[in-house]
Amino acid sequence: MIIDWTIAPITASISILVAVYLYFYISKQSSGTEKMQEIADAIQEGARAFLKVEFKYLAVFVAVIAVILTFVPMVADIGLSSLMGIAFVFGSICSAVAGVLGMTVALKANVRSANAAKQGLNKAFPIAFRGGAVMGLAVVGLALLGLSVVYALTGDPEIVLGFSFGASAMALFAKIGGGIYTKTADVGADLVGKVEMDIPEDDPRNPGVIADNVGDNVGDVAGMGADLFDSYVASIVAVMILGVALSNLASYASISFVDVPLVFAGLGIVASILGVAIVRVGKNGNPGTALNIGTYLTCIMFALITLGATCYLDINIGVWASAVIGLVGGVIIGITTDYFTSIDKSPVIKTAEASQTGTAVNIITGFSYGLLSMFPALLGIAFASIGAYTVAEYFIEAEGAGVYGIGMAAVGMLSIVGMIVAGDAFGPISDNAGGIAEQAGLDEEVLDITAKLDAAGNTSKAITKGFAIGAAGLTVIALLAAFQAIVQAETGVTINFDLMDPLVLTGALIGIAIPAVFSALVMLSVGKNAFVMIEEIRRQFREIPGLKEGKEGVKADYASCVDIATKGALKELILPSVLSISITLAVGFIGGIQALGGYLAGSIFSGLIFALLMSNAGGLWDNAKKYVEAGALGGKGSDTHKATVVGDTVGDPFKDTAGPSLNTLITVMSLVASVFAPTIVLYALL
Amino acid sequence: MIIDWTIAPITASISILVAVYLYFYISKQSSGTEKMQEIADAIQEGARAFLKVEFKYLAVFVAVIAVILTFVPMVADIGLSSLMGIAFVFGSICSAVAGVLGMTVALKANVRSANAAKQGLNKAFPIAFRGGAVMGLAVVGLALLGLSVVYALTGDPEIVLGFSFGASAMALFAKIGGGIYTKTADVGADLVGKVEMDIPEDDPRNPGVIADNVGDNVGDVAGMGADLFDSYVASIVAVMILGVALSNLASYASISFVDVPLVFAGLGIVASILGVAIVRVGKNGNPGTALNIGTYLTCIMFALITLGATCYLDINIGVWASAVIGLVGGVIIGITTDYFTSIDKSPVIKTAEASQTGTAVNIITGFSYGLLSMFPALLGIAFASIGAYTVAEYFIEAEGAGVYGIGMAAVGMLSIVGMIVAGDAFGPISDNAGGIAEQAGLDEEVLDITAKLDAAGNTSKAITKGFAIGAAGLTVIALLAAFQAIVQAETGVTINFDLMDPLVLTGALIGIAIPAVFSALVMLSVGKNAFVMIEEIRRQFREIPGLKEGKEGVKADYASCVDIATKGALKELILPSVLSISITLAVGFIGGIQALGGYLAGSIFSGLIFALLMSNAGGLWDNAKKYVEAGALGGKGSDTHKATVVGDTVGDPFKDTAGPSLNTLITVMSLVASVFAPTIVLYALL
Repeated sequence: MIIDWTIAPITASISILVAVYLYFYISKQSSGTEKMQEIADAIQEGARAFLKVEFKYLAVFVAVIAVILTFVPMVADIGLSSLMGIAFVFGSICSAVAGVLGMTVALKANVRSANAAKQGLNKAFPIAFRGGAVMGLAVVGLALLGLSVVYALTGDPEIVLGFSFGASAMALFAKIGGGIYTKTADVGADLVGKVEMDIPEDDPRNPGVIADNVGDNVGDVAGMGADLFDSYVASIVAVMILGVALSNLASYASISFVDVPLVFAGLGIVASILGVAIVRVGKNGNPGTALNIGTYLTCIMFALITLGATCYLDINIGVWASAVIGLVGGVIIGITTDYFTSIDKSPVIKTAEASQTGTAVNIITGFSYGLLSMFPALLGIAFASIGAYTVAEYFIEAEGAGVYGIGMAAVGMLSIVGMIVAGDAFGPISDNAGGIAEQAGLDEEVLDITAKLDAAGNTSKAITKGFAIGAAGLTVIALLAAFQAIVQAETGVTINFDLMDPLVLTGALIGIAIPAVFSALVMLSVGKNAFVMIEEIRRQFREIPGLKEGKEGVKADYASCVDIATKGALKELILPSVLSISITLAVGFIGGIQALGGYLAGSIFSGLIFALLMSNAGGLWDNAKKYVEAGALGGKGSDTHKATVVGDTVGDPFKDTAGPSLNTLITVMSLVASVFAPTIVLYALL
Repeated sequence: MIIDWTIAPITASISILVAVYLYFYISKQSSGTEKMQEIADAIQEGARAFLKVEFKYLAVFVAVIAVILTFVPMVADIGLSSLMGIAFVFGSICSAVAGVLGMTVALKANVRSANAAKQGLNKAFPIAFRGGAVMGLAVVGLALLGLSVVYALTGDPEIVLGFSFGASAMALFAKIGGGIYTKTADVGADLVGKVEMDIPEDDPRNPGVIADNVGDNVGDVAGMGADLFDSYVASIVAVMILGVALSNLASYASISFVDVPLVFAGLGIVASILGVAIVRVGKNGNPGTALNIGTYLTCIMFALITLGATCYLDINIGVWASAVIGLVGGVIIGITTDYFTSIDKSPVIKTAEASQTGTAVNIITGFSYGLLSMFPALLGIAFASIGAYTVAEYFIEAEGAGVYGIGMAAVGMLSIVGMIVAGDAFGPISDNAGGIAEQAGLDEEVLDITAKLDAAGNTSKAITKGFAIGAAGLTVIALLAAFQAIVQAETGVTINFDLMDPLVLTGALIGIAIPAVFSALVMLSVGKNAFVMIEEIRRQFREIPGLKEGKEGVKADYASCVDIATKGALKELILPSVLSISITLAVGFIGGIQALGGYLAGSIFSGLIFALLMSNAGGLWDNAKKYVEAGALGGKGSDTHKATVVGDTVGDPFKDTAGPSLNTLITVMSLVASVFAPTIVLYALL
């Protein structure tokens, strides 16, 4: 056998090498005028300061959990159990390294892309895109390499769960902290700057402008990277665990069902690297189209490469079919989601039109379309699961094949995560490039180009977001199955998720509340911090003479705003993080394993609902505002515009703080449950 | 045996007689000046016109379903099956009669209460409250009498399901139609009148004022009555069906488990009649406290009376304990819900304070507290279910006793529905009394008294709303168990609700989307109709000279606004009503009975989430506005006030259209599933 699962660490290592190569490629580019460098440095400094403190908090958190994992027996084999703690720490470190690497290059790419924009779109685009690609390739490379190392050393997928849990803990911190940070800064800067003072976005007079730019990096780049690192690892581990039971029943394939997801993930990296290499755009090309074509081509390449490998390695064709169904499901979810948030489609236009009647109707209409938008996405997840389940069951012909198929659908959707993160990180990099160009006073032409790049980022984001949400949905379903499999294997207890069992029902009723409570806590944090930020920005405009008028030599105190956002975000992330883990454990240790099963199921449903609602409604309000700003219905400055600005501001914490954190939340809850399951069975109260 | 289940029709008849007596008591009171009568007549006319058209639509809808129910075999016994259609029609008629009677008396009580307010609070209060009591007693009386008749004639609880389904169909129309109507009028009248023209609420110059008052009656009185009629019947029927299986296993009680819920419901009516008789208030008393004390006393009386009956009839004590746990759960849910919406508690005050930073922060903060508010309510439902399950299981010692206990908890919560509806209908009657007093130009003193009554209505509403939501939650859980029991009994198929079954999972993923889609449709309808209404009100102010200035003899064209609200509401109720039934049938006939089980479970979870979120967030925004209007944070006219007005307007369709319709929606879906279950098992595609 020439190819086996070690293809995973090999392609992962290649991915890291390509990322490093691209890093140097970007570093070599010119970073423009002194003024531009000065702004870029300020952003960099703010982002680093945030990460530094965040990692300090994270270290304490990781240490506490690692100690618990090491000394409380988590699996039947005590010898291996103590390794769980190490795997956990390793997982959080790998995710953190990917995040730091990705953010560092994003902070270089923004100013360099802005500078290259002077020479045209075709010069600026590759810098921004390759900047994003570093993040994408670092995420998949470090994730798959780390996971492979743990698997190679222990040979036990359950210990790999520890690695996944570590990555999730990092993601939870990065998403919540980054999400609160970015919206504190954004809401604060917008409300005082754009609404009260009537100065444009990214104007250097606004004291919150640097904090706002920092937020794009810590929230949208680092947070998003950690999020997908987390989902990616979790989907692979879940399938490996489901593969253990399946391998005993149906081992006629030449490669074990435990190893197959690693092979597919490894081949997905190959497809992603090729996809990254293919994407390019001409001088007058459309960067949004280029990104989408890149994504589609990556999907096709993945399908073909894995088909070849499936035949060559004699892998059951049901496995391949499940993965491809997942991939197709991801594309469909992306396209339908896009419909509800696109600036040229009916929901956005109708919301903008309804805003003529005032702010309240803007909110009601946007919220309603957000509710409607769940339907196609949930249908997509439903059809991907039943499709994957059916083909896997049909071809593999063994008990447990169906849920294994659902897991492979998640792996299929996430296989091209390298490409997805590249396209996603491209957005905030271009956004920052535009901000730097605006603050450094570059020409209108240059601003036009960075605006085009920014718009392309939004277009590609819709498709990739569909993947992220769809994959998260399938992943948590696979994790739920893995939880069931672990409990069965370790303790012989069968979890049935029967709602007529009062413990399951009680668990489910508590579980559905958790994503809501969590969303509320993080959004209230944004409100609270934004309040402080607004007061500070107002104070500066009031007390610094000449600031509003833009008098030569008068500078805002950016650092104090950065400081408010940093301290606020880090203080506020503690409660939701600790709660999400401790309530899960409390339900398990009090209500027992059946209650915990119901709790997870409930949290998945409610988590999906709120993630879809908040992400889509937020995106829709954003574009309704842009639709009016493009000149429709009275354009900028009209009452209709003011109504849409409020809608956009409401949508900000929806789509950038609470919504996207929910994926991570439900993954963390599922992993906590799976890791602690054997202990819970032994010591539960009921 | 002196007492058996026939106590139900006996007390139900007494309840109807008391309602008729109170009707004449109210009719006898003076309806004040000519001006007042004129206004009251206009409201009455508008409400009647709406009901007339609504009933026409309903008749077509009922006829179609009745034909299907009659000719498609719904139960194994074909002879009985044809009775299903008749029971269905009978159920919708009973509910309609209760609604018409309740609304007729509400329309008399409003103007008479306003007139009596000239002589003091202690004269106005009993008229408004007894007006509400007519609705309350008519609802429980007609519901229980109708149900008993069907049961007496057929002896088959499954046919009683048809009666329940008929009541639900009526409720669906009444809630959606009334909900859209009331908010179309309210939003329209408020946005133009209060915000744009700066004239007070209920000002006769506002062309939308009569439509707004009509809305209170068709939405809050008739809609709410139909809603609780529906839940009340459904909970009793569900327990009767669960009792069938249980009676075979544990029949040592002297009265069958099928009949017990009827006995408890009958005794609940006794407690409610006593409760209604007790409530009174002194000249300077607090009507809110009087209402709450009345509710608590009714609960205590119910617990004592049923304890006596349980001992006397030798009913298993576990049944009584379950019912009382339900009742206590209802009170706890009410009190905790009250915390999140009370004007003097932290969530409302913090939302008002956050509004100083602008409208967007008001929305974000209120929405977040709405999310948080789910937690105690869901915990309350969870603990009521597990508590009732445990005691029932412990004392009855037979399979199926646990879910029977959950059903009895729902019956317990709903047993005092007569009192709850009385307190609830009191609110819109007082609201209308205030409106009439304002429009007729009565003295400030009189307005003060009607305002006090209105505020009391809001206080009591919080507690009773807790009951309604908690009871709906338990009822649909009981219905889900009844669905399982019917499928088991009729076809031998066991439904397991196992999420790892792909059909169950797919069903659940679709099910969780339905309440969201439904809410979106009805809220978009409000937005759409309000738009038309706003244009019309603006047109009148523009085109009728002297209207804004209140020139003598100049009158607004109220009828055209009433017409817009009526036509819009009725046109818009068709799509969501038809969808909710047809998607349920589509899932069943395509995906089969297991998919339908998952679908119902999913819809229950998501329905509970959105019902709690929308009702509570809406109530909170309302009171945040009132908090500012009472003089805090700059008071009326300040920017903070404007922000809270927008929040209140957003909350209007949340709390009065979408939120409360969801109870009805999930009940209808459960009933459709249960009624069609045997047919689905025979003809499903998968």
